[in-house]
Amino acid sequence: MRTALVIGTGLIGTSAALALVGRGVVVHLADHDPEQARTAAALGAGMDEEPRGPVDLAIVAAPPAHVAATLADAMRRGVARGYLDVASVKGGPRRELESLGLDLSAYIGSHPMSGREKSGPLAATGDLFEGRPWVLTPTRDTDTDVLNLALELVSHCRAVPVVMDADAHDRAVALVSHMPHLVSSMVAARLENAEEAAVRLCGQGIRDVTRIAASDPRMWIDILSANPGPVADLLADVSADLDETVQALRALQSSDEAKRREGATGIEDVLRRGNVGQVRVPGKHGAAPTVYESVVVLINDQPGQLARIFADAGAAGVNIEDVRIEHATGQQAGLVELMVKPTVAPVLTAALRERGWAIRQ
Amino acid sequence: MRTALVIGTGLIGTSAALALVGRGVVVHLADHDPEQARTAAALGAGMDEEPRGPVDLAIVAAPPAHVAATLADAMRRGVARGYLDVASVKGGPRRELESLGLDLSAYIGSHPMSGREKSGPLAATGDLFEGRPWVLTPTRDTDTDVLNLALELVSHCRAVPVVMDADAHDRAVALVSHMPHLVSSMVAARLENAEEAAVRLCGQGIRDVTRIAASDPRMWIDILSANPGPVADLLADVSADLDETVQALRALQSSDEAKRREGATGIEDVLRRGNVGQVRVPGKHGAAPTVYESVVVLINDQPGQLARIFADAGAAGVNIEDVRIEHATGQQAGLVELMVKPTVAPVLTAALRERGWAIRQ
Repeated sequence: MRTALVIGTGLIGTSAALALVGRGVVVHLADHDPEQARTAAALGAGMDEEPRGPVDLAIVAAPPAHVAATLADAMRRGVARGYLDVASVKGGPRRELESLGLDLSAYIGSHPMSGREKSGPLAATGDLFEGRPWVLTPTRDTDTDVLNLALELVSHCRAVPVVMDADAHDRAVALVSHMPHLVSSMVAARLENAEEAAVRLCGQGIRDVTRIAASDPRMWIDILSANPGPVADLLADVSADLDETVQALRALQSSDEAKRREGATGIEDVLRRGNVGQVRVPGKHGAAPTVYESVVVLINDQPGQLARIFADAGAAGVNIEDVRIEHATGQQAGLVELMVKPTVAPVLTAALRERGWAIRQ
Repeated sequence: MRTALVIGTGLIGTSAALALVGRGVVVHLADHDPEQARTAAALGAGMDEEPRGPVDLAIVAAPPAHVAATLADAMRRGVARGYLDVASVKGGPRRELESLGLDLSAYIGSHPMSGREKSGPLAATGDLFEGRPWVLTPTRDTDTDVLNLALELVSHCRAVPVVMDADAHDRAVALVSHMPHLVSSMVAARLENAEEAAVRLCGQGIRDVTRIAASDPRMWIDILSANPGPVADLLADVSADLDETVQALRALQSSDEAKRREGATGIEDVLRRGNVGQVRVPGKHGAAPTVYESVVVLINDQPGQLARIFADAGAAGVNIEDVRIEHATGQQAGLVELMVKPTVAPVLTAALRERGWAIRQ
């Protein structure tokens, strides 16, 4: 790939442009708002000028609702050899393009699985996609050349290509992202009118469950509007589980021993299925989940304490896989949980003890 | 408090005993399984011998279902001046004691809000309660002396006392712990039979939402069995939200523009209520949530990298409030997100840049 045209210079478009420029690709930038394209150009993401002839790849980074129209316009103008979009849903845009009667052999739908809280070209960075899955949805009709251009883009962005069917992709993101997002919001919504004394008792569990409920509703309305079917189906499944669980809990209140046993069995069922599902969530390396062992160190909240712990771990040759800092309620003291491979946990414990750290048994 | 009797030497009982012994209190240990009490004694948590006369405080740390009977037995034998239990629900045990016709002026129900994945005396540690809320549920009939004994225990364990009504406590833990736990399990349960390709797309969002679904079902059946009413009420509220959200998503699939707008409004409503609720979840210091700013550093997965980052932050006098390590999918590279007070974020960014770290914009 020597030349590219990025249409839509928001966070994703500008980030991809920056990555391509970094790899020596000549990038042209366009946006329905010329000011946005100028900003992206000023950031070094390419030139805000129309290319003179067709480029190798046109990357359409418009909001889901505008993707098909923007792609159709670009294809009719023949601006590129290959066309790719990066919208977070894939089935709808493809069907819209098909209904327009366009030849889609030069088109491939894609979805880079990364984003940030911020948006716009100023939030863009060439490493936005680094190590993240980037879904490609070729069909039997997709030109191999176009697939290869897409793979080259993914490689330049140092993302990990994942090939999927468009509708399978939409069901997958409904499962791993859209449905959990709405459920997290519903748990958080219960706190809206909760008493202050109750809220004080919140711990790490509810903090984790509700973290993503802090996201911008406008962006999420766009995402959910483009994928309502699969999300509704999954929420309906959750709802069925929920109703059964409410029944099981009501049975636990019964004075009838047999009913109570039945209730406990119902609760156990959902908890066990939760166990099985949770194990499937990939660990941070995207592989099968690695079971780490944790070493818990007591600290006070002074600068330098974490530095010393990590320096001491490093001196012992131990690689920390993950960290969780749990501070005490209303106090300036807390615990640092260091996650390490099970084989090195005793090494780390011994090394930190030797250097005077208090380790929880 | 000079003497105490701990009845039930599992994780909580033995941890409290260790904390009391550490403060010079003479602790007697008892368990329905004498082997457990012997183990606790061997760990330095006290003596596995009956006290000769009444102790100052009897601490009953039996499973919820056995709390009332164990307390009643201890009170009838007159083993202490004051009686306290540590069960994770408070309304049921109190009503059971009342139905036994006992004088409850010497009794106070309590609940230390801490625990671990592990159980039994071997998992115990004297700092288990450090900085955590410890709920006390005195009534108008509770002797002030007994309340003060309980406050002394909480202080010795370096926990933070929170006074609540027993039923308010049960509703509060249903809200901040029991309901989120079941909902997390239900989200995780959706992954049980998911396709591998879909599971590969999991990111930090679903990882956080489903983390607590990994817990031991047996322990949770006990907890939920003791508090089914408030949990069922909250789940029914979530279910109502869920059903409305499914309707809203179905409306988004409509060809009627007005219906689609109605659907979007419904989705926006639940997302916005989620925003409002999420903000109420206390930060790690238990106070109003502090908004930290994050500084994101690129690393590779070598030992010593984190140590260097923390050492460099420490050298700049910056206190890291929280850390999140996000590794790349299938690669040995990733990002470290350092959460700091907003005022020091530019200081940290500059200091790390100067020392050669790549900081995400």
